[in-house]
Amino acid sequence: MNQKLGKASVRPEQPVYILNSGSIVGTKEGQGPLGLLFDTVGEDDMFGCATWEEAESSLQKDAVYLALTKAGLKPEDVSFIFAGDLLGQSIATSFGISAYQIPLLGVYGACSTCGESLTLGTMSIAGGFADKVVCVTSSHFASAEKEFRFPLDYGSQRPLSATWTVTGSGAFVLGNEDALQSMKGSDAGVTGTGRKARARITGMTVGKIVDYGLKDSMNMGACMAPAAASTLEQHFIDYGSQPDDYDKIITGDLGKVGQRVLIDLLRERGYDISTQHMDCGIEIFDGESQDTHAGGSGCGCSAVTLSAYILKQLEERNWKKVLFMPTGALLSKTSFNEGKSVPGIAHALVLESV
Amino acid sequence: MNQKLGKASVRPEQPVYILNSGSIVGTKEGQGPLGLLFDTVGEDDMFGCATWEEAESSLQKDAVYLALTKAGLKPEDVSFIFAGDLLGQSIATSFGISAYQIPLLGVYGACSTCGESLTLGTMSIAGGFADKVVCVTSSHFASAEKEFRFPLDYGSQRPLSATWTVTGSGAFVLGNEDALQSMKGSDAGVTGTGRKARARITGMTVGKIVDYGLKDSMNMGACMAPAAASTLEQHFIDYGSQPDDYDKIITGDLGKVGQRVLIDLLRERGYDISTQHMDCGIEIFDGESQDTHAGGSGCGCSAVTLSAYILKQLEERNWKKVLFMPTGALLSKTSFNEGKSVPGIAHALVLESV
Repeated sequence: MNQKLGKASVRPEQPVYILNSGSIVGTKEGQGPLGLLFDTVGEDDMFGCATWEEAESSLQKDAVYLALTKAGLKPEDVSFIFAGDLLGQSIATSFGISAYQIPLLGVYGACSTCGESLTLGTMSIAGGFADKVVCVTSSHFASAEKEFRFPLDYGSQRPLSATWTVTGSGAFVLGNEDALQSMKGSDAGVTGTGRKARARITGMTVGKIVDYGLKDSMNMGACMAPAAASTLEQHFIDYGSQPDDYDKIITGDLGKVGQRVLIDLLRERGYDISTQHMDCGIEIFDGESQDTHAGGSGCGCSAVTLSAYILKQLEERNWKKVLFMPTGALLSKTSFNEGKSVPGIAHALVLESV
Repeated sequence: MNQKLGKASVRPEQPVYILNSGSIVGTKEGQGPLGLLFDTVGEDDMFGCATWEEAESSLQKDAVYLALTKAGLKPEDVSFIFAGDLLGQSIATSFGISAYQIPLLGVYGACSTCGESLTLGTMSIAGGFADKVVCVTSSHFASAEKEFRFPLDYGSQRPLSATWTVTGSGAFVLGNEDALQSMKGSDAGVTGTGRKARARITGMTVGKIVDYGLKDSMNMGACMAPAAASTLEQHFIDYGSQPDDYDKIITGDLGKVGQRVLIDLLRERGYDISTQHMDCGIEIFDGESQDTHAGGSGCGCSAVTLSAYILKQLEERNWKKVLFMPTGALLSKTSFNEGKSVPGIAHALVLESV
């Protein structure tokens, strides 16, 4: 039986596998420390499109294509797609994945959307409603700045606490044991990493909205850190686990400011994660040479880092078990201009090597 | 076993119950044909708040409160909340339901979000991940006009094909057999409709994005009708069912224009739904006297009509089995201003009397 665990966690009875995945990023991400690991790096950040939003849509389309192709699958082989992005009404998804004609369940959790889509995708498979699903999220530096702050043409200055929205999209094909076996028995995976799953998802903790009243859209890390602390603490309680039980505890895009806040908040609650903590936003850029200040962020940040870097470490068994927790700042320009705070949310998944 | 059915449908092994629900609407909706059926009608459309967006947030908060109270439950009794709205980054949800501190899975499917939240909520229960969850969606005429078209102060004229976004929110407490039994054995439900479930959810068909290339944000009905036709046809195929198998086939907010398009599109595909079809957007307003043109629309339209009217008919066994299909237009002002079309999506649920 699948089971509910504690207040906010669930554990699938049978493991759900990440059969394969795909990542595509922009030029700046390609020049960063993880640049060589991504499946595709664009020549420029328009990706052949007329607008930033269309470019982001094409990122989702390409990431899904990469993930499906590497898994040896066609769009009609998967039951559902769980997809979302940061733009108003999730238009990167609406115009990005429609060509695949896969039944869509749209999700929104700000930059935590990658975690939410994987959580719901895992539930749909472990619940027996699907053999295979796709989860995809994206972000684009230019479309996000326009959506949340100022158009790039204004040349606004960015404080050191600001993060740089990652241009990129990561897609994941999830499957059950049957799907894994049929992949092994086919030509599947030959173009990817081989005829085995990249990792398995063995647990999930769903976050709640946490609002410490911060109102700074240029310091998303501090806005999200309390939510990250809340979900992490709940995860440790629900699973009866400790930071040491994980090779890495990986947040999505807290950046350098948020990382410090998270470690402090958890220390107050009796958990020291300073050894295990890693943040996708800190890994993806070289802050010194790339002028990205606190780090990378966005729906695409954790997704492409998971696909290109984290899953690789799990495959090579450098890490055996990690907690992957994309973090989201529930900001919109409307609520921001109306003087509202920026609440946060974070969803965690336990990923283990196969 | 839960099972996948055909290309896009799923059937839970055990029925999932709508234990109870709540509805709150604005003044115009209160004056409409269904006015006396809603749990709460606001005195004005600001609901004591300073902005339209805050007002919409308070609608979600109140609808969830009504649904939980009528079911005899507290927020901590439910595992997850599946919530969404129409605003950029779903801010009605972000600021509406945070006080409940329920783990949140945010969803976006435009006006189909009510169907999506119920679909995912049902999967989480039928999959064994939760005993009880809440699903809530909302819309507000004034926040929606500002978000998608023009601020009300401009006094823009509305063509006859335009719909009137419903100010309202509907929330639903879903539960499994255990949850139903414990509700029966407690004081639960005494403030609501009694110690039994309002209906059960016995099947679901997940829609895909369908885009016929229409670009008119003042004719959402025509934009959504092809998606409604697609999901309905897929539903009939997956379940091997016919229109006659349902007492009503209920769309969310196609309005009078969309209804005609839907009936025509399905007739071309060999299905005549003209006898069974009902549209929440047509039911909720009296178009002649209320100047609402093609009908009501929005995330709240199907939700409050389900809570106040459809579930009542199922309880009274005037209807035994209906297909409830909220319809969504995947529009944003950004994509619209960039000249993109308005794709549609629709998710269907089979609801049966208990």
